[in-house]
Amino acid sequence: MASASKFYTVIIGAGGGTGGAVASRFAKAYPVVLLARTAATYEGTVSAINAAGGRAVGVVADAGDRASLDAAFAAIAEQLPGHQLAAAIYNASGGLQPKPFVEVDPQVLEASIDVNIRGFFNFAQKTLPLLEASVPTSPHPPSLLVTGATASVKGSARFATFAAGKWAKRALTQSIAREYGPKGVHVAHAVIDGVITGPRTEAYTGVNGGAPDGKISADSIAETYWSLHTQHRSGFTWEVDIRPYVEKW
Amino acid sequence: MASASKFYTVIIGAGGGTGGAVASRFAKAYPVVLLARTAATYEGTVSAINAAGGRAVGVVADAGDRASLDAAFAAIAEQLPGHQLAAAIYNASGGLQPKPFVEVDPQVLEASIDVNIRGFFNFAQKTLPLLEASVPTSPHPPSLLVTGATASVKGSARFATFAAGKWAKRALTQSIAREYGPKGVHVAHAVIDGVITGPRTEAYTGVNGGAPDGKISADSIAETYWSLHTQHRSGFTWEVDIRPYVEKW
Amino acid sequence: MASASKFYTVIIGAGGGTGGAVASRFAKAYPVVLLARTAATYEGTVSAINAAGGRAVGVVADAGDRASLDAAFAAIAEQLPGHQLAAAIYNASGGLQPKPFVEVDPQVLEASIDVNIRGFFNFAQKTLPLLEASVPTSPHPPSLLVTGATASVKGSARFATFAAGKWAKRALTQSIAREYGPKGVHVAHAVIDGVITGPRTEAYTGVNGGAPDGKISADSIAETYWSLHTQHRSGFTWEVDIRPYVEKW
Amino acid sequence: MASASKFYTVIIGAGGGTGGAVASRFAKAYPVVLLARTAATYEGTVSAINAAGGRAVGVVADAGDRASLDAAFAAIAEQLPGHQLAAAIYNASGGLQPKPFVEVDPQVLEASIDVNIRGFFNFAQKTLPLLEASVPTSPHPPSLLVTGATASVKGSARFATFAAGKWAKRALTQSIAREYGPKGVHVAHAVIDGVITGPRTEAYTGVNGGAPDGKISADSIAETYWSLHTQHRSGFTWEVDIRPYVEKW
Repeated sequence: MASASKFYTVIIGAGGGTGGAVASRFAKAYPVVLLARTAATYEGTVSAINAAGGRAVGVVADAGDRASLDAAFAAIAEQLPGHQLAAAIYNASGGLQPKPFVEVDPQVLEASIDVNIRGFFNFAQKTLPLLEASVPTSPHPPSLLVTGATASVKGSARFATFAAGKWAKRALTQSIAREYGPKGVHVAHAVIDGVITGPRTEAYTGVNGGAPDGKISADSIAETYWSLHTQHRSGFTWEVDIRPYVEKW
Repeated sequence: MASASKFYTVIIGAGGGTGGAVASRFAKAYPVVLLARTAATYEGTVSAINAAGGRAVGVVADAGDRASLDAAFAAIAEQLPGHQLAAAIYNASGGLQPKPFVEVDPQVLEASIDVNIRGFFNFAQKTLPLLEASVPTSPHPPSLLVTGATASVKGSARFATFAAGKWAKRALTQSIAREYGPKGVHVAHAVIDGVITGPRTEAYTGVNGGAPDGKISADSIAETYWSLHTQHRSGFTWEVDIRPYVEKW
Repeated sequence: MASASKFYTVIIGAGGGTGGAVASRFAKAYPVVLLARTAATYEGTVSAINAAGGRAVGVVADAGDRASLDAAFAAIAEQLPGHQLAAAIYNASGGLQPKPFVEVDPQVLEASIDVNIRGFFNFAQKTLPLLEASVPTSPHPPSLLVTGATASVKGSARFATFAAGKWAKRALTQSIAREYGPKGVHVAHAVIDGVITGPRTEAYTGVNGGAPDGKISADSIAETYWSLHTQHRSGFTWEVDIRPYVEKW
Repeated sequence: MASASKFYTVIIGAGGGTGGAVASRFAKAYPVVLLARTAATYEGTVSAINAAGGRAVGVVADAGDRASLDAAFAAIAEQLPGHQLAAAIYNASGGLQPKPFVEVDPQVLEASIDVNIRGFFNFAQKTLPLLEASVPTSPHPPSLLVTGATASVKGSARFATFAAGKWAKRALTQSIAREYGPKGVHVAHAVIDGVITGPRTEAYTGVNGGAPDGKISADSIAETYWSLHTQHRSGFTWEVDIRPYVEKW
């Protein structure tokens, strides 16, 4: 039973959409810990997983603040005594203001830096030693999985601050992958290229001309993340792109 | 039972190593057809799959020759009457002569063109209409999966002819993916970055310093191909890279 | 005076447009040799350069045919006795049929292979030893410059055969650059991303919404090629992109 | 005479090496303004340019601080009354600590963010309106040129924080290029792939095996920047790579 596993998964940025779906998917195998800046973000997913017989724990944390992250992992250690980390998933994002460049508020750049760069840096420094410690015994190679976007590989007009954060996060991920692969930790990055199903996008009915499955099913992303986590160490993937069949690219 | 499925998989370049492993993996779900220029290439894999309770058929074919390919698919239609194509896998390769550029034999360039470009072009023109016809009924999105290499994305010194063929194959794959995605056919390319286990590489004991799992397990590649084939159409991946955890990149 | 230089430039694919403009630009410094499959292609440019006080020679040659290329360079040696090669420019292209993939005539693929891959391979094998021999005495690092296109880096739907040839040509160029850079030969590739001025495109009045300078001036490409040729060996560029200020990319 | 031009160039990160060489090159055409956090950084270059008959002005400024940048441009307006901006060059860098990822001091990440992201964002917001205003009258398309590095396109192990800043800066540059190209402002990025000559690297005698010209001449970089600045608007380059002929890549 998943809830009996001595390994757990931690996910940051785990509201509806991708984070929630990934939490539910990994909860089939492990207890999952959901981190968010406010409890309201994760409460629905935590309840749903527990109601379905899995085990989910929510902890308030701000990855941009190292003390907050330290406190969160201390809380995890109390809630899941004797557990080891099997997978850490960084799904937080932000810092978008689609305006002409000179009109972009510097605070939007700061927000992008905080969530995409500083927050991920802190989260990675915190989780990598835990993942490395799990290498000898984890059922699958311990994994650090990172959610990216089209803006991770393309700097479009009016997406400057968002792209800056996303490219930087991808750079960190790649650097870490090169250092931690040889230690047996699987670090991977997903370029999500499209609108994802979830509460925030329910109203977007015209995506890809309103085609059926024109939005990316969050569950399909979760399935791909699970495939990454379960890859054999002799065949690690560092990056996948994910997009609807009807997406122009 | 896989052998009872009315859908089949066709694989070209199916000796030991990747092709054989992919054939065995897909044989868990579908009858598989193995194509090669000489029967000796596929015989071992065909026997093994049939012995294990799957269904495998070998057909001699040269993808560089359209008439040969036509004959092969006519033979398939006879052997698997009423079957539809669920997955086509292009795993053939060649055209490498690691010499100073001006010493490379023009025949090596021709070999690279034949197997990587002309052969793949013919195979794709042959299989895409069959895959498209399977869209409404196939258990998973019909898939055209293509095996690439490091040389698909990097033109190293002394790898000119090999890289030329590999880059061209990747270009064809990407063009086709953009055209056939919206039709519901999943076209994907794998950049295999490392030495693969198999009869041809058994003697290479020093790969990645002789590290355990320093060669890519062909079975792990097969598993990743299966993950690609079973992706939901709302979340197609066009490209994955696959490499051993210890590989420098 | 340019016509008195003991170094020369050879350009293949030198009709109007890019080839002609590059020939005229390099003719300010060197005698230039224009190669094309039919004399009609280069005659106008040859006459114009000679009339302007430069020196230009036209030679019929088919790069896809090694014997034809051998004959052409024998003719060059007779016409420009004692001259050494300072720059070789490959500007030939072809193999486009913007149709659905399965309707593309295999002969179009063969045309793309011939001009983009086989022809360039032959041209490079022929010119690289000549360029290498010029390293100690050439006024600028001897250069092999190659014209690419958007299709060199992107496989768009309906551009499969064209992209296959272009990607392969770029792969060859990159492999050669890595081998010949250390010898002092500058190998560079230009991704031309837009419609170029010239006789063939004169009628296209709506390019980029008809904006002024919405087509790439062939002379501006020639100027960029000259900049590449005159780079110091301590600061070689392997690739530039070139596009109109108004181009979407 | 350059010093009589009513257009000027501003360079940030203008000590010895690249910044100084670029300042000297652009000083042949325009008065140049050198910005740095301490006057000692630019004093030598300013004196040399003025002694050689050009015109150079040094202003203390910290691009990470918007008020400091505002003050600097107010000082420039006083020193060069009636002048317009022809070229802005961002050459500042930092944030490198080549250690195992978990040992990297968070302050190094903050330094990388400050100089590569926040500083460039501020500098671009300040200069783009000035460059845009120069479009109708500038002798060449007004240009924003940005210095990158290998770490702008590759996240190597132990270069995580540096790569994060560099990738982000490249993302900002690309977003801005897409927005400002159509306005006639030329935004370009240079990937400098090698060790550059200059006071800081004088002691590195073993670069590329000690080969002659094994370090990139800062003057050759300056020449390439000048080529970018003088490109016609119908043929803008967004990115060049620059490396010594002997560099492995």
